[in-house]
Amino acid sequence: MTQAASVTAAILVIGDEILSGRTKDKNIGYIADYLTKIGIDLREVRVVADVKADIVAAVNALRARYNYLFTTGGIGPTHDDVTAEAIGAALGVEIVEDPRAIALLLERIKPEDLNEARRRMARIPQGAELVENKISKAPGFWIGNVIVMAGVPTIMQAMLDEVAPRLATGARMVAETVSAGGLPEGAYAAALGEVASANPELSIGSYPSFRDGRFHNEIVVRGRDPMRVGDVAAAINALVSRLAQRRA
Amino acid sequence: MTQAASVTAAILVIGDEILSGRTKDKNIGYIADYLTKIGIDLREVRVVADVKADIVAAVNALRARYNYLFTTGGIGPTHDDVTAEAIGAALGVEIVEDPRAIALLLERIKPEDLNEARRRMARIPQGAELVENKISKAPGFWIGNVIVMAGVPTIMQAMLDEVAPRLATGARMVAETVSAGGLPEGAYAAALGEVASANPELSIGSYPSFRDGRFHNEIVVRGRDPMRVGDVAAAINALVSRLAQRRA
Repeated sequence: MTQAASVTAAILVIGDEILSGRTKDKNIGYIADYLTKIGIDLREVRVVADVKADIVAAVNALRARYNYLFTTGGIGPTHDDVTAEAIGAALGVEIVEDPRAIALLLERIKPEDLNEARRRMARIPQGAELVENKISKAPGFWIGNVIVMAGVPTIMQAMLDEVAPRLATGARMVAETVSAGGLPEGAYAAALGEVASANPELSIGSYPSFRDGRFHNEIVVRGRDPMRVGDVAAAINALVSRLAQRRA
Repeated sequence: MTQAASVTAAILVIGDEILSGRTKDKNIGYIADYLTKIGIDLREVRVVADVKADIVAAVNALRARYNYLFTTGGIGPTHDDVTAEAIGAALGVEIVEDPRAIALLLERIKPEDLNEARRRMARIPQGAELVENKISKAPGFWIGNVIVMAGVPTIMQAMLDEVAPRLATGARMVAETVSAGGLPEGAYAAALGEVASANPELSIGSYPSFRDGRFHNEIVVRGRDPMRVGDVAAAINALVSRLAQRRA
């Protein structure tokens, strides 16, 4: 893996079924965790419908802005699978039936079953590399800085494993979590804000959750220097304990 | 509720914690279901970090394009809560401490505990209506076509219930699902594409899932005319049965 200061990425989820609520997306959280672990900063996510113009606009906005764009969904054999076509249009590249993709499909499909619809899954923008997966055999592809993956989570995950070793990565973000327990955010917000201002190289967030009629708050310190993250998390922990004792 | 032909919406999820993978978003799917049920078409979702410029850009892109923009996250008392400020900047409106919001906060917080950080939760863009919630008392707000809600799911849900009766809605999209069982997408894609072409007013999608080493496919027919949706779903069901028998 290449090491760079900061490598950024976006995800584009393509699919009417996510927007209608029919399917609950499981890919965003998975890819977010995965990229964080390998040292790529996920900066933006978009979800758009199976509408070619909308996909083209989102692809062009995101690929220009971030080092990588990962897309999920819309690469199957049915009429609503328009991702390959949209990526071709976004990049100004022709879509062609790729003999390598046909060969992969034939590992799973009998030659007499390779109908026109299934051949659609081998239509790939010219110049793209294929992204194989052992599960369905129908490939995703990688062109420029755009990595096109399936929407079905197990298949998407296999594709991500396939491309990960070849991605440029930066220093990993390390995170430490400090529990503030039932101490309200409003009780520590001012002091925490001062810690955040004094450590602009760190990302410090306060995350409330609400269970059984009560808030439970956690503070997360993130940064690329594990020592610094540890020191600041320890200082916040001491701060939170002090404030909690004062209230007790 | 007002009835219009089609009412559209977008969601903007604001939060570093979603992009780092630390928190798995539960709001997108919930809001998607909710809007579908009341007759609003969710057309786009974006997730951005707690970075003011990024929020401003996304708010302005989405509020111009859709009838409503719902945001979640970033309205608490801590330094990383920058949503109100960003919305004010996006709309060119000043942020002021709202006495109605202060009154709501005082229903839960003792006057002596209303420190500067907590007062931040009462800083609302001028001219906005408040969106109350019974759980935390800290309000969201509604300005122009932008509805700003909390990120904590239970609180966001209470806020959505609060605004829903006042939203303009269109004819509800009705959906019927046809199970294709283990019949592969490639076996019905061509015929389904013909049905889709013949019914451009309907949205017809094919959704594979992968369990126990096998694909399980479902076809969803969506539209505003329940009779038409029912008829086309029945036709697709007959088509799928015929193709499955031919293979048996």
